[in-house]
Amino acid sequence: MISVTILGAGNVASHLYKVFSKTEQVFVKQWYNRSIGSISTHKNEVEIIDDLLKIKEADVYILAVSDDAVKTLSASLPLENKLVVHTSGSVSLYDIDKKHRRGVFYPIQTFSKTAEIDFSNVPICIEALKSNDYQLLKKLAISIGSPTKKINSDQRRVLHLAAVFVNNFTNQLYRIGHEITESEGAEFDVLKPLIMETAKKVQDFSPYMAQTGPAKRNDKKTIRKHLKSLESEHHKDIYKLLTESIQRTHGRKKL
Amino acid sequence: MISVTILGAGNVASHLYKVFSKTEQVFVKQWYNRSIGSISTHKNEVEIIDDLLKIKEADVYILAVSDDAVKTLSASLPLENKLVVHTSGSVSLYDIDKKHRRGVFYPIQTFSKTAEIDFSNVPICIEALKSNDYQLLKKLAISIGSPTKKINSDQRRVLHLAAVFVNNFTNQLYRIGHEITESEGAEFDVLKPLIMETAKKVQDFSPYMAQTGPAKRNDKKTIRKHLKSLESEHHKDIYKLLTESIQRTHGRKKL
Repeated sequence: MISVTILGAGNVASHLYKVFSKTEQVFVKQWYNRSIGSISTHKNEVEIIDDLLKIKEADVYILAVSDDAVKTLSASLPLENKLVVHTSGSVSLYDIDKKHRRGVFYPIQTFSKTAEIDFSNVPICIEALKSNDYQLLKKLAISIGSPTKKINSDQRRVLHLAAVFVNNFTNQLYRIGHEITESEGAEFDVLKPLIMETAKKVQDFSPYMAQTGPAKRNDKKTIRKHLKSLESEHHKDIYKLLTESIQRTHGRKKL
Repeated sequence: MISVTILGAGNVASHLYKVFSKTEQVFVKQWYNRSIGSISTHKNEVEIIDDLLKIKEADVYILAVSDDAVKTLSASLPLENKLVVHTSGSVSLYDIDKKHRRGVFYPIQTFSKTAEIDFSNVPICIEALKSNDYQLLKKLAISIGSPTKKINSDQRRVLHLAAVFVNNFTNQLYRIGHEITESEGAEFDVLKPLIMETAKKVQDFSPYMAQTGPAKRNDKKTIRKHLKSLESEHHKDIYKLLTESIQRTHGRKKL
């Protein structure tokens, strides 16, 4: 049985609480947040605290807080030589106060309040300074059904950066697709199977192999038509830059 | 029973042939291509021709050829007052020669040689000048299990344009994610569940609602870190432009 104390009340904290509390091999010892309001609904299931002085012994303390809070919160923790990890893609392991045994437990997934999370689809990237700590974090990840990946800080940094491209930026392209279609009374819904298929394709083929379309085949006529169709200058800029990007990748001339 | 003649031998033609030939309500009368080579493997299943003069009566003639070929090929067809449709997102219905009954049968999906296509995930956008022709094309789409959508030329134009954003451009973001991760010896595989989840999310929520990340929450520190991490000026440009795009959508200040 691994005892875990969760600190924070955001999306990652809430989803971790949810999955840990239904995992037999894990016991959530305490759940801390500086304001108790949002997590107090769970007070009959777990000890909720808003005072760091009330913190008890646990095997792992998970700081699922905003990036900026990791440093101060870890320094304020009245503990020593305990395993304290954060869950951030972009914060250094060394932002955790050095009085602790330090680690990172970084789930690569998009968490939102509403959508359910299946942790078997959430790879957890693990960093730790000590081998025993690494093993414990790995055990914790496996217990919730997540694939695990041992990574170093540089790899975590680029994974977080790449995640912004494949998640936030991709989602913004969906948004632009939404705007464009609705502007003519067409329905964004018609594009949803294409969105799924585009994502599915790169599960088996490299994005390089999966590419198709006017930019790749250097179909200037269609590219011109598209640029003319776009009403927003901003959308035109994005169209041009990403067309150029595809053409660089596939060895076509610049636009 | 609807009799269909397919013209062309690219991905769309091949996938349509495959699905029609296993559909009871459809009979593929002939399959034409100007060079018989690539489709001759099917010669025991269907009549393969490379001579337009050999073309026979059918209910529908589907021009699944490159955009530029629609005009000439339709003019060369030795037919009159027959239902002739193309499958292109960006070619006008009026590019089909006016001696025919004209229509469009535009499947919104990414077709590649290798990946299997499930036509229940391929919405077919239908345009026709005559109501009877529209009904026949709809029946044809339904017979292969596809959802159908009646659209006009303007709607088809914006759907095709939006498809470039959500498919080709999105795939290029995956490609960049691939490049960035591999540059540090991290594995692109770790991002695959995130890619799926990002696509899944907008099946149920609007892209606007689904957005997360540093651009949306105007996390300048992370944005600065990311820009510093990116080695390619070209990737920096894409990062900046899409961050700005998200901030416009979500009412944040410009970068």
